[in-house]
Amino acid sequence: MTTTKIILPESEIPTHWYNVVADMPNPPEPPLGPDGNPIGPEALAPIFPMNIIEQEMSQERWIPIPNEVRRVYQQWRPSPLYRARRLEEMLGTPAKIYYKNEGVSPAGSHKPNSAVPQVYYNKVAGINRLSTETGAGQWGSALAMAGQMFGVEVTVYMVKVSYQQKPYRRSMMETWGAKVLASPTDQTDAGRKVLAQDPDSPGSLGIAISEAVEAAATQEDTKYSLGSVLNHVLLHQTIIGLETKKQLEMVGDYPDMIFAPCGGGCNFAGMAFPFIADKASGKNINLVAVEPTSCPTLTKGHYAYDFGDTVGLTPLMKMYTLGHDFIPPSIHAGGLRYHGDSPLISQLYHEGILEARAVPNVATFEAGVTFARAEGIIPAPETCHAIRATIDEALKCKETKEPKTLLFNLSGHGHFDMMAYDKYFRGELEDFAYPEEAIAQSIANLPKF
Amino acid sequence: MTTTKIILPESEIPTHWYNVVADMPNPPEPPLGPDGNPIGPEALAPIFPMNIIEQEMSQERWIPIPNEVRRVYQQWRPSPLYRARRLEEMLGTPAKIYYKNEGVSPAGSHKPNSAVPQVYYNKVAGINRLSTETGAGQWGSALAMAGQMFGVEVTVYMVKVSYQQKPYRRSMMETWGAKVLASPTDQTDAGRKVLAQDPDSPGSLGIAISEAVEAAATQEDTKYSLGSVLNHVLLHQTIIGLETKKQLEMVGDYPDMIFAPCGGGCNFAGMAFPFIADKASGKNINLVAVEPTSCPTLTKGHYAYDFGDTVGLTPLMKMYTLGHDFIPPSIHAGGLRYHGDSPLISQLYHEGILEARAVPNVATFEAGVTFARAEGIIPAPETCHAIRATIDEALKCKETKEPKTLLFNLSGHGHFDMMAYDKYFRGELEDFAYPEEAIAQSIANLPKF
Repeated sequence: MTTTKIILPESEIPTHWYNVVADMPNPPEPPLGPDGNPIGPEALAPIFPMNIIEQEMSQERWIPIPNEVRRVYQQWRPSPLYRARRLEEMLGTPAKIYYKNEGVSPAGSHKPNSAVPQVYYNKVAGINRLSTETGAGQWGSALAMAGQMFGVEVTVYMVKVSYQQKPYRRSMMETWGAKVLASPTDQTDAGRKVLAQDPDSPGSLGIAISEAVEAAATQEDTKYSLGSVLNHVLLHQTIIGLETKKQLEMVGDYPDMIFAPCGGGCNFAGMAFPFIADKASGKNINLVAVEPTSCPTLTKGHYAYDFGDTVGLTPLMKMYTLGHDFIPPSIHAGGLRYHGDSPLISQLYHEGILEARAVPNVATFEAGVTFARAEGIIPAPETCHAIRATIDEALKCKETKEPKTLLFNLSGHGHFDMMAYDKYFRGELEDFAYPEEAIAQSIANLPKF
Repeated sequence: MTTTKIILPESEIPTHWYNVVADMPNPPEPPLGPDGNPIGPEALAPIFPMNIIEQEMSQERWIPIPNEVRRVYQQWRPSPLYRARRLEEMLGTPAKIYYKNEGVSPAGSHKPNSAVPQVYYNKVAGINRLSTETGAGQWGSALAMAGQMFGVEVTVYMVKVSYQQKPYRRSMMETWGAKVLASPTDQTDAGRKVLAQDPDSPGSLGIAISEAVEAAATQEDTKYSLGSVLNHVLLHQTIIGLETKKQLEMVGDYPDMIFAPCGGGCNFAGMAFPFIADKASGKNINLVAVEPTSCPTLTKGHYAYDFGDTVGLTPLMKMYTLGHDFIPPSIHAGGLRYHGDSPLISQLYHEGILEARAVPNVATFEAGVTFARAEGIIPAPETCHAIRATIDEALKCKETKEPKTLLFNLSGHGHFDMMAYDKYFRGELEDFAYPEEAIAQSIANLPKF
């Protein structure tokens, strides 16, 4: 019988992460301080340990993965690469479709790939407590699990409305021993300020970030941890693409196009970056970031210096942005509702090395249901974006009779997102028009240099 | 680095299921009709196709797995066998602990192992519609997924209180294209009868079975499908133990004791039966069924002929039973709330070949949390029973300094059971005293021959 899953043995878990900075045509644009001047490592020291800051700024092509991290990775890695034969048949496409299943991690997504090393490096640096924020709960779950593995206490500031609507994500974090607080809390200045103005505030990711950063900066023995956007987070995620390359080699195949969801960017970068060196040496491959039309950062944003958070506490980063005070419509793919994008992805996109597509909301769930009915696995709403783009391409191949090889990153399962599927079946989901005016206004508010 | 997961290649998916009947010291006691006389295959024909009935009555040791079934199994099988090194360390035990992770199936449990062949055999027999019942939702999900794979329509009668409390399990079944009805419905005589007496009836598994059986017996082109108890269901599940044996051989190990949760029995039988032949040829191995103290079928029940359902529609089966009208307390391990047990397991237990232990409710969640914090994976409440017994044994090994090899079946993940974990953390779960009087009364109601 033909193979469905391509499995690497544990001994083949990569020994190094891949740092795309070494292969970029131009060095990354530096982050800037509030005065518009480039900042050094010391500016990040209040919230990150020095070993992580060094990684954030490294230009080395290969960064060794500590054995302690690889040992935890073994719990679910290498993750399987699938040939989607049933989906191909259902679509009647001549295209070959592969997907990497990152939903097999205990936390259900690719997020632990960075949560585990982040906790490890903090532990090595003598840090015993981490604070972070979470919206939909994927990142908070991953950090809670990783914290448990290394004996580091994790406090998660969870956006209050999610805390109330997604009690099961909260229970999951508590099962792994994390402390979960409904943000805004009365335990930080930032939280108290918000509550004073609006005691019933539902919270927002921006507020939760402010609380988590403040906790790290002011509490003893505590640092902050972020789940996407930054260089070191993207670095850790490259294990996805590195494994995938080995797995494709095992079956003698190579992708013509790669699709992955793109919010902060760690999911897309994790799959796509390891293929960039090949592209530089002449391989013909399209690396496509897929984003929602309701939050079209790469496809409609400006390439400019902007804050990473809503309230403007972080350094300024050169990135595609819709403006830091742009609030995207409430789609269920919470991981893709970010006004900006990773600076590395932004620069590579700006230089024409990466591509981007935007897909509308309802069509992503239609694609997710098609996929679930063909392959069994129910994908997370973020993942449905990559599936939509992959199916569209496979159907194009059907018309043109091109037997392309397509690959996408199945970044997570949808077990905690069934409410969104339910709304889809009841016809309660909607597409959002491109919020042109709101974006024009927030772009006008970009910091000027 | 030492190995965590033991992975079989897809080509090693067993080609045959193992039929324990061939190795039993005595032939199975036959099912009886309402008159107390043994029934033949034709008595089952209104609700099952003949190819499944033949399998139910087969005495062949090895039954070939159709290629079409193996092809669907490839979606998640072979499932990984884990060495629980982090749990061993946390417990400080000299015991080696292995677990087979059946939670990797798209439906999240071992149930698709039988759902897939059941749908396949019905399809081959020309049946295009199946009816079934579900309580907690594991079986309904598995049959919905399998139905989708072979183009067979699935209708699930879901106990109304679960339908209301677990909307996400329902959405999961709908994602795979199944029709889910809150039982009691007004679409069957059985349902209408209940509703006439109590329009607000919350439903029960017994009622849902009656509705699903009636639908199969009265609707055109429709058969019924059951997720445990019967011989053919246990047969399909033996793929778990067969794979495990191969995986243990790969690392040169063999278990001293095996633990699995036991409700209807398919989970336990799936892991334990393939080891029975070894036991018969002199291997020293303990096969331990783990059940809740609140529903102690094997440890406290009577070995007698009884009905498989609450209302008394099924043939009589010789089994350990608490009486068919015994209603177990509402614990969250819904899969273990069954008054009876598989006739094959019952007979083997009666003959001293299998063992059984009962564990109390709260302690099972304590074990589940310990496991999740060590190994990452959050187990289903049913699985927590096996984990409790395994941890107890590992701690005993710590006292006696015996380096035993322990193995348990991680039958499913707990992603849809976080409400139960939440209650555990809030101290809202309770242990139930052995319901001695209720059992004495239902035992007194057993059919007499």
